[in-house]
Amino acid sequence: MNFNVLLQDKVNEVDDIVKSFLPEEKGYQQTVLKAMNYSVLAGGKRLRPLLMQEVFKLFSGNGKVVCPFMAAMEMIHTYSLVHDDLPAMDNDEYRRGRKTTHVVFGEAMGILAGDALLNYAYETAIGAFSYVGSGDSAQTGRIISALKVLGRKAGIYGMVGGQVKDVEATENNEQIDKDTLQFIYNLKTGALLEGSMVIGAILAGASDEDIKKTENIASKIGMAFQIQDDILDVIGSAEALGKPIGSDDKNNKATYVSLYGLENAKAEVVRLTNEAIDLLKDLPGEKDFLKELLLWLVNREK
Amino acid sequence: MNFNVLLQDKVNEVDDIVKSFLPEEKGYQQTVLKAMNYSVLAGGKRLRPLLMQEVFKLFSGNGKVVCPFMAAMEMIHTYSLVHDDLPAMDNDEYRRGRKTTHVVFGEAMGILAGDALLNYAYETAIGAFSYVGSGDSAQTGRIISALKVLGRKAGIYGMVGGQVKDVEATENNEQIDKDTLQFIYNLKTGALLEGSMVIGAILAGASDEDIKKTENIASKIGMAFQIQDDILDVIGSAEALGKPIGSDDKNNKATYVSLYGLENAKAEVVRLTNEAIDLLKDLPGEKDFLKELLLWLVNREK
Repeated sequence: MNFNVLLQDKVNEVDDIVKSFLPEEKGYQQTVLKAMNYSVLAGGKRLRPLLMQEVFKLFSGNGKVVCPFMAAMEMIHTYSLVHDDLPAMDNDEYRRGRKTTHVVFGEAMGILAGDALLNYAYETAIGAFSYVGSGDSAQTGRIISALKVLGRKAGIYGMVGGQVKDVEATENNEQIDKDTLQFIYNLKTGALLEGSMVIGAILAGASDEDIKKTENIASKIGMAFQIQDDILDVIGSAEALGKPIGSDDKNNKATYVSLYGLENAKAEVVRLTNEAIDLLKDLPGEKDFLKELLLWLVNREK
Repeated sequence: MNFNVLLQDKVNEVDDIVKSFLPEEKGYQQTVLKAMNYSVLAGGKRLRPLLMQEVFKLFSGNGKVVCPFMAAMEMIHTYSLVHDDLPAMDNDEYRRGRKTTHVVFGEAMGILAGDALLNYAYETAIGAFSYVGSGDSAQTGRIISALKVLGRKAGIYGMVGGQVKDVEATENNEQIDKDTLQFIYNLKTGALLEGSMVIGAILAGASDEDIKKTENIASKIGMAFQIQDDILDVIGSAEALGKPIGSDDKNNKATYVSLYGLENAKAEVVRLTNEAIDLLKDLPGEKDFLKELLLWLVNREK
């Protein structure tokens, strides 16, 4: 099957899984439920849950235990976008071609919808225990490990840590060095991608060694993905991206492109992706789609 | 021992437990770690972890498994205050006698510090599994139940749900009725108090019936506590409270006092507290301190 058709099929499947965990829009608090669902349903590539599911399958994972974690990861990714878009942060009015959550629902509701999504992500992931028989201590142990990874990769030693340094460097016009940029990218973007792939491996019962390899691959993809994002902010089209281009420049943000130039950035994306694909060969299972997915990430235009 | 001395001893002990779970202020992301610690260390009554610990002891709970949950609950309570104080929410510059987090660290860092605290609360609570031997499936099961309660009581069917309706009613100048006020108070304030006491009972291995009774007591205390808060916003002293009084009035907020009058509010606090203390008699164990604590909550002036 053609990769793009297959990708769309898989994204649709992931979409259905994510949607099945969203709250019903009813009750006194329904405004925040609408705001949460509006944010998640804005679309996007569903890359994180898709990678989680693909790695889960790679290691012959069975059953639905991965589904609540797929939804939780997408909720965490979405909350971070909702808060990033706030006036006190990047102050973006458009995201994925639609008005941002705080523009539609007001700033207070934007803050609360982000909080609600983050909390609901944990409620949802914790719900994974209900998929396990009470005697199955191996599977219970895997869910516990997956929860630990989720917490770490989303928090101060993961995504939030990266966001903080990113915001601070931008606000203070800091001249950041290569190490700081590496820290920001590893955490801000890399951490959730690493978390997604590692959780897929853990829940499928992969060995510690294979989990380590998976994390290494994810780390390279995360870095390549963020640099590609920088590149698209410079050379992409606003129409394809669904948001204004040049926002990094507008916000005076140091990026891989601003520090190293466009051509070096492009070369780095290719290098990292090739390394990731090389490492992928060491893993078991059917890897054709995953490999094509990684290549697609490099060549994506939005 | 005199109640106030005993209370201070216990608060100090709870304080030490909460502090032991706070992050070290180092690394590229240290600004957010400082902002998190600044917010948590602003003091406050530590009421939620204290109640959790007291209920844990009431049901003969043993060991340290309750400690990460005590810290997690205080982090969740603190993140909600940090976000509540933001300009787009209540826009408060003082809290517990000190400048609020966003005033000291900037608005973007206020948003991120709140996010970081919420996420770290889950990281911390999930860490409770490391206190349990791998063969102890009963204790593992209790931690799973406690995590479910934590998630539910903090989220859209708990605290956040109440905050949302509260913010919305205030922004839109809604004439709210008794049911809506009950909903807001039950969730905004009651949910975390219920969660604290119920988690204490669950982790100690209390029976389902006793857990239900505990939740009922906590629900009444939560309502009494929030009405007392409304009363203090009208008749309290800014010095004792460490924040300006009259903020509900300034924000045009419907409260129990504005809907029913000061005397009815005072009577309702007494009624609910008496009911809670009556129900407490049904529970096992040594209850003298817990009873005095509930009475202190009614008579508190800050």
